[in-house]
Amino acid sequence: MAFSALFWSFNSSFFLKHSINHLKNPPKTPLGHLYLSTMKFASSNLKQTNQAQEAPSLAFQLKEYMFTKLKQVNEALEEAVPLQQPIKIHEAMRYSLLGNGKRMCPILCIASCELVGGDEELAMPMACALEMVHAMSLIHDDLPCMDNDDLRRGKPTNHKVFGECIAILAGDALLSLAFEHIASKTKNVSPDCVVRAIAELGSAIGSRGVVAGQIVDIDSEGKEVSMKTLEYIHVHKTAKLVEASAVCGAIMGGADVAGIERLRKYARSIGLLYQVVDDILDVTKSSEELGKTAGKDLASNKATYPKLMGIDEAKKFAAQLVEQAKEELASFDSAKAVPLFHLADYIASRQS
Amino acid sequence: MAFSALFWSFNSSFFLKHSINHLKNPPKTPLGHLYLSTMKFASSNLKQTNQAQEAPSLAFQLKEYMFTKLKQVNEALEEAVPLQQPIKIHEAMRYSLLGNGKRMCPILCIASCELVGGDEELAMPMACALEMVHAMSLIHDDLPCMDNDDLRRGKPTNHKVFGECIAILAGDALLSLAFEHIASKTKNVSPDCVVRAIAELGSAIGSRGVVAGQIVDIDSEGKEVSMKTLEYIHVHKTAKLVEASAVCGAIMGGADVAGIERLRKYARSIGLLYQVVDDILDVTKSSEELGKTAGKDLASNKATYPKLMGIDEAKKFAAQLVEQAKEELASFDSAKAVPLFHLADYIASRQS
Repeated sequence: MAFSALFWSFNSSFFLKHSINHLKNPPKTPLGHLYLSTMKFASSNLKQTNQAQEAPSLAFQLKEYMFTKLKQVNEALEEAVPLQQPIKIHEAMRYSLLGNGKRMCPILCIASCELVGGDEELAMPMACALEMVHAMSLIHDDLPCMDNDDLRRGKPTNHKVFGECIAILAGDALLSLAFEHIASKTKNVSPDCVVRAIAELGSAIGSRGVVAGQIVDIDSEGKEVSMKTLEYIHVHKTAKLVEASAVCGAIMGGADVAGIERLRKYARSIGLLYQVVDDILDVTKSSEELGKTAGKDLASNKATYPKLMGIDEAKKFAAQLVEQAKEELASFDSAKAVPLFHLADYIASRQS
Repeated sequence: MAFSALFWSFNSSFFLKHSINHLKNPPKTPLGHLYLSTMKFASSNLKQTNQAQEAPSLAFQLKEYMFTKLKQVNEALEEAVPLQQPIKIHEAMRYSLLGNGKRMCPILCIASCELVGGDEELAMPMACALEMVHAMSLIHDDLPCMDNDDLRRGKPTNHKVFGECIAILAGDALLSLAFEHIASKTKNVSPDCVVRAIAELGSAIGSRGVVAGQIVDIDSEGKEVSMKTLEYIHVHKTAKLVEASAVCGAIMGGADVAGIERLRKYARSIGLLYQVVDDILDVTKSSEELGKTAGKDLASNKATYPKLMGIDEAKKFAAQLVEQAKEELASFDSAKAVPLFHLADYIASRQS
């Protein structure tokens, strides 16, 4: 599964089920006490569903945090790409940029900025730029000469609606707008930090980043793939943009070098974790449970973590990645780290 | 003709023929005296071809200037995109970026930087980025779903060699590298200026720049096109990147707002001038003289300046544009303005 399918669930049933399961086996991590505390709040909330005016649980606050950020990012994106002349290209850009995306990268960017003491406003142009880059990669990935996908997020892909020519141009325009937007809209951040963030984003997308992962993935089709190559593909194709999201948010928030590097490692772990979990779900869940075709990787003889290391080892590797991610958060303000802590757990425990 | 065909001639025969023609009718411009002086040097050079050890003419110095810049830009581009892993994507990027390009935008960028008192080094990363953006636009323009061209600069187009998928990714990688390169390689320029230049470049490429021109051009195929629409297409599709080249060079060189705006107007005029001259040549020259198919615009019923305003009016418009361009140079140091002054004249008088 491509990074495009990165999923962020906010529905209450997930939070409650997830909370109860974890109360029985709290994770042994540096922030385990905080996590347990969060989950106790959630459990308490379960019992209080009929009691109006109760103080909201911390779990509920996390959900609120995510919803609030999602809404603010969507408003900022709407403003960043207004429907202007020439209408057709802006329609095509908005078609893939706006709508029901999960805004994983923008929210991670903002959460990282806030974690290091910055305000949301400092990171919002960067957050929007990350979503523009993400949208560009989806539009180009879906093209007939690439993955040749007709559907994306339940609606026709960009080129099916606007044609290949406009889809390519819409991707190009979103990519250039991403950099323009950071440069022209970021306020109250030193220009030196803006320049560093632009260099980071450019590097994450390009021929040593996302594009490198795509190329090696294409080149590996139908071949025997080593563990090293599989990790290369996923670290580049999926984790690089996740990494840039956290790093650029931290830069905009004024993090020091050590803080930036900790967040880089955190994001690299959760980016790769997402992919490992995705591979495991493909062989352990039914199509009904996944909401998509299960066993696709096996059927297409695609290299996956369970295939290369076995299902048990793949699960251990996933657990190791979530631990690694959490360890990187240990030295930050624990209250501010809650969203990122929660995110690592969510990715590890998702069931679809 | 697309901007891709922008041509910079340095061969001696052009310089000499051009010089003699203009000696008979020196252009009446604010810098006409300087131009005449340049051309007299060139004429003098013609008589001295057999006299070794003569001081080089100013015309020859201009040629030297262009050759030197071309060489330095090529060296910097070679260094900017080394052949590294993954090999295939870097081969594809280098295939379209390096080789026999004329480096019009990079040289204009450096000349603008030097005009306002900056050194070449300040503008070189920006100059390379402009060529990366230009190469990206050529790769994507040539794709089967766009112009469907098999040949570019006398060799197979990128997708003919590497396939559509890699060609699209090579374009994406070049575009992101362009911004990364400016942000990470520019030295001794204030970060504030770097951020302004990045915003300028992003705006020039995107949905209100080059892409806007391409979209309106595509949308105009087979329709009656007004003078206003024709100018819109060419100003955006061709002149925007020329404009960004001069403006970004000036920003890197530390120009004040007034200087930047004068160079913006100069570049907008020469960008549009190139297109008007191109249209005129299409109807006044033979295929042999042009080195490409003449009368192509007429045959394809394409909107051109001669078609919409008549050949004489189109020539007057071209003369007006070159005058406008030169007027913008009047307030700069006349010695430093020679390359840009010469460039306007070359574009106006080119015969192929």
